[in-house]
Amino acid sequence: MEKVLVIGHRNPDTDSICSALAYAHLKKELGVNAEAVRLGEVNKETAYALDYFNLETPRFIEKVDEDVKEVILVDHNEFQQSVSNISDVRIAEVIDHHRVANFETKDPLYFRVEPVGCTATILNKMYKEHQVEIPKHIAGLMVSAIISDSLLFKSPTCTDEDIKAAKELAKIAEVDLDVYGLEMLKAGTDLKDKSMDELLANDAKTFDMNGHKVEINQINAVDLEEVYEKQAEFEKAIKTHVDKNNLSLYLLVVTDILNSNSDVLAIGTESKKVEQAFHVTLTNNRALLKGVVSRKKQIVPNLTDAFNG
Amino acid sequence: MEKVLVIGHRNPDTDSICSALAYAHLKKELGVNAEAVRLGEVNKETAYALDYFNLETPRFIEKVDEDVKEVILVDHNEFQQSVSNISDVRIAEVIDHHRVANFETKDPLYFRVEPVGCTATILNKMYKEHQVEIPKHIAGLMVSAIISDSLLFKSPTCTDEDIKAAKELAKIAEVDLDVYGLEMLKAGTDLKDKSMDELLANDAKTFDMNGHKVEINQINAVDLEEVYEKQAEFEKAIKTHVDKNNLSLYLLVVTDILNSNSDVLAIGTESKKVEQAFHVTLTNNRALLKGVVSRKKQIVPNLTDAFNG
Repeated sequence: MEKVLVIGHRNPDTDSICSALAYAHLKKELGVNAEAVRLGEVNKETAYALDYFNLETPRFIEKVDEDVKEVILVDHNEFQQSVSNISDVRIAEVIDHHRVANFETKDPLYFRVEPVGCTATILNKMYKEHQVEIPKHIAGLMVSAIISDSLLFKSPTCTDEDIKAAKELAKIAEVDLDVYGLEMLKAGTDLKDKSMDELLANDAKTFDMNGHKVEINQINAVDLEEVYEKQAEFEKAIKTHVDKNNLSLYLLVVTDILNSNSDVLAIGTESKKVEQAFHVTLTNNRALLKGVVSRKKQIVPNLTDAFNG
Repeated sequence: MEKVLVIGHRNPDTDSICSALAYAHLKKELGVNAEAVRLGEVNKETAYALDYFNLETPRFIEKVDEDVKEVILVDHNEFQQSVSNISDVRIAEVIDHHRVANFETKDPLYFRVEPVGCTATILNKMYKEHQVEIPKHIAGLMVSAIISDSLLFKSPTCTDEDIKAAKELAKIAEVDLDVYGLEMLKAGTDLKDKSMDELLANDAKTFDMNGHKVEINQINAVDLEEVYEKQAEFEKAIKTHVDKNNLSLYLLVVTDILNSNSDVLAIGTESKKVEQAFHVTLTNNRALLKGVVSRKKQIVPNLTDAFNG
């Protein structure tokens, strides 16, 4: 049977890795020869989840293998966030919870995007729709994805559906949401052993905003100042990255997972757009965005408006 | 409560009108202030269905009313097929069964595209998911949409899901699929009162094929010869249209809904491509394409290959 790859986005986060694995499992149960793959290194948070539930890291690919004709995208739909040769393969399905943009197919497909906090929340419904039981380790991955994307339900992207799904999945996975959740999130804030290049690529996504290339990278932390001890080093590396990639703006978002604020560092010719977008003043290229923890619901829409305004 | 408009595509067909009405009904049952609207004249087939189930034609709009902030798109997602000021409003949902292209939002949304033959087939599932009962007249509209899009299940775009949904809906609507279906399709083949310009614009779509501008217009008929009584008049009007719009090919596809064949009239410098595409010989600019009824699945792909070959 022809193989179908299940692919999360570049610079994968916990949802991209775990939902790829969870959906590949569901497809296999439904008789499809599906394999979850990843487009980058797994972060420490994801590694914690995989280790806890005793699962192997998916295979890394740079591009879709030549003998593969079909792929399924999870947790993303914009082509620039996907595998490099995405235009050469048939996209059979998309399961996602982000805005829809920069996506195009020749043929109809199964395209399911819902405005919930996490791809795994949609997958939880799909398991039910197909009446397939979720095994303990897969439920563990799915609840990890929801905890990660919702910052343990503190993010404004989190919906009642996410909370309900997480509770169901935690039960199957036999974990205490608060205890397991905080341990997993904390594991992700461990930045030691990371090179500056790794930190910059951490969870970076590129967006087109009114013709401007904008890259936004989010790092979770329990101690913001500890991250910014390296500010000078960050700025130097970011400037090089901005020049090399013709970015109009690179925004580093350091998110305090305990207090739900973000301290951002803005570099690029369009850094003033950050001031307009959030009604703040950048001091030493930085600003504290109170109550801002979501790139998708808070940062991208506000910045997009500032670029279009 | 803020009003949400449910919008089908321009040059609306039966699915676009009926699915807008059927989905607006479901949303209202779920507590949303939804109104179905239309972007063009209803055709005679649709008018037959509305009349049969005693429903009013949705309100015509040229653009989204100024006080409306949210819309739901059914049966389309490409912006050029939608209302002119689509970029100025928030798209809350898309329910569709076409390819995804030329679509973009700032925010996550509910975007549901499935590779089935008709939007109403997806809506049938959604009624079940929300456990809302489908009233008789709404079921009538939904089964009409499926009959229309599938040419009573004869189109290669028709899936098992469409047939299953149509059978369920026909039962609720208390109609015999074959009897009602054929009457409705026949109503759509009534070409009298139509000017030559209206006939040429009927269901015309333009495609780029390897740099050539190709326009394909489909007309359903029960008596092909009756349509071609006007062949000389058609040819004259088409030639003027071809010159005016720099078309390489205008293909009039007259589809015999009883026998599932199409008799095509090809005008333009590239009319030979029709011969290559379908292995036929044009006689008097016409050829019978046996078993060909779908522009999307049969005509466009074969012609595209001929232009690329």
